[in-house]
Amino acid sequence: MRYLTYRQNGAEHAGLLHGQTIYDLNDALACAGRPPVSSLLALIEAAAETPAILSALAATDLSACTPVTNAVLCAPIPRPRRNVFCLGKNYAAHATEVQGTRLSGTGIPQHPVYFTKTAAPALAPGGVIDCPEKLTESLDYEAELALVIGRAGKNIPAEDAASYIFGYTVLNDISARDLQARHEQWFRGKNLDTFCPMGPVLADQSEIPFPARVQVTCRVNGEVRQNANTDSLIFDIPTILSDLSKGFTLLPGDIISTGTPAGVGAGVGAGFDPPRFLQDGDVVECEVDHIGVLRNTVRRKPVV
Amino acid sequence: MRYLTYRQNGAEHAGLLHGQTIYDLNDALACAGRPPVSSLLALIEAAAETPAILSALAATDLSACTPVTNAVLCAPIPRPRRNVFCLGKNYAAHATEVQGTRLSGTGIPQHPVYFTKTAAPALAPGGVIDCPEKLTESLDYEAELALVIGRAGKNIPAEDAASYIFGYTVLNDISARDLQARHEQWFRGKNLDTFCPMGPVLADQSEIPFPARVQVTCRVNGEVRQNANTDSLIFDIPTILSDLSKGFTLLPGDIISTGTPAGVGAGVGAGFDPPRFLQDGDVVECEVDHIGVLRNTVRRKPVV
Repeated sequence: MRYLTYRQNGAEHAGLLHGQTIYDLNDALACAGRPPVSSLLALIEAAAETPAILSALAATDLSACTPVTNAVLCAPIPRPRRNVFCLGKNYAAHATEVQGTRLSGTGIPQHPVYFTKTAAPALAPGGVIDCPEKLTESLDYEAELALVIGRAGKNIPAEDAASYIFGYTVLNDISARDLQARHEQWFRGKNLDTFCPMGPVLADQSEIPFPARVQVTCRVNGEVRQNANTDSLIFDIPTILSDLSKGFTLLPGDIISTGTPAGVGAGVGAGFDPPRFLQDGDVVECEVDHIGVLRNTVRRKPVV
Repeated sequence: MRYLTYRQNGAEHAGLLHGQTIYDLNDALACAGRPPVSSLLALIEAAAETPAILSALAATDLSACTPVTNAVLCAPIPRPRRNVFCLGKNYAAHATEVQGTRLSGTGIPQHPVYFTKTAAPALAPGGVIDCPEKLTESLDYEAELALVIGRAGKNIPAEDAASYIFGYTVLNDISARDLQARHEQWFRGKNLDTFCPMGPVLADQSEIPFPARVQVTCRVNGEVRQNANTDSLIFDIPTILSDLSKGFTLLPGDIISTGTPAGVGAGVGAGFDPPRFLQDGDVVECEVDHIGVLRNTVRRKPVV
């Protein structure tokens, strides 16, 4: 099942993508004999209590529902309840390419490196990434596989990780490298408005079977910059869920972005000397197998 | 006006504290001829659109309302919509005391250092701070003045900062120093369950006139460990709002914690050699003038 959120006539709705056709989630829930939900996040929270909702949805014949037309995609979860938990330096080649830059003093991490990204609001597929003049001169992309938690869990055993995952989406961890370095901790450089593009859909485990070995690609104006498989994650998904949930309760709808491969614009290891930061008009496409392409355009704009 | 959130008969309500008496916020809003709200956060969001709600509340004669009995305090905003934005090393004496430890390589910051803390859920006044066995051996306190944003703002001029502030509360930025150092970025060590005590109330600017020069104190089992005035912040509140909002929209209900003074348990500069971390049964009291005492107890517990 591929879930999404869309706008139509100014209102936001949750939906399902079947082939190329969008169906309203509440239409599908009605067909399945289930009560409506206010959002995709609300579905995830409801399903955490009542998993049968999802099997009922999967068994529903969508041909009885009316396809949605004139829909504009939003981020699948446009306003998560908590910041996105992000992994830093979770591919060895990426940890190496930023070693020696001001972004990192330590090279390949011995323990997962976590920071957070404000995703309320997240940027929609097709949305414009702002590059504010005078504020940053080093806007960068980071294509990532992000997972969405399906049920509450604390001290999750690594071998049980799959049962805590609702599904997967694509996240572009846009970063202002100058701010990231200047403010010591990474939060500031990772959190200007529009810095969290997400989508296009949220694919569940019927689309991406665990352990989610998928290709993560980033293209800028069609040129491939990043291209790696999640099987080369330093800390894999079971390790992340097990480690992050030690003493810390993960909640339904929480988003964990698993880190970015080598090839970022700031990455000296990728042979980018001088660095290749994003410029006005650039089209950035982040793609993950079975989820789709998250496409956004960069716009240089004055700080008002 | 002093706002709070309380539980009564299993349900959560917003309230007002007048002297020692709690009134239900919706009772007061009814007296003021205003519609009810679902939470204190909802009041802040409503007042961002309609500031007259607050002046109507302030003009209301609460003696017409029935005092609330058998209330148990919650954090004023028990589930903020985004992580708390926290300042690191924002008092010079604290930046100095952690210099040379594994928590910091740079001493006094030249630019504000931001990280985030998950406050959904925040820990209530009187709540128990968990110290999970085997997970951390270096639980630490950090008393802080936190401010709550009252209306949306981006690129806020420093001289307009006061008009963006709804009020102030006390936050204890509980930190597991070993995890904080081990995971490179600070998020992990700052974010175990129960690590965000907040309260007891949210005091507005009629209680704490701008620029909020207040004493921030922490006591452990009655012994004063931290005691400093916010007039010694390296980056003061106008600077923080101006800097953090550059290119980044602050929203009503966002919480910014302004940093902690010298005297933390890990602070070698405070003469704590060996460090004085929190132990099972310790009572931690964080106090800020005009807001009150945020008291919590530490409990050592097994990781289940």
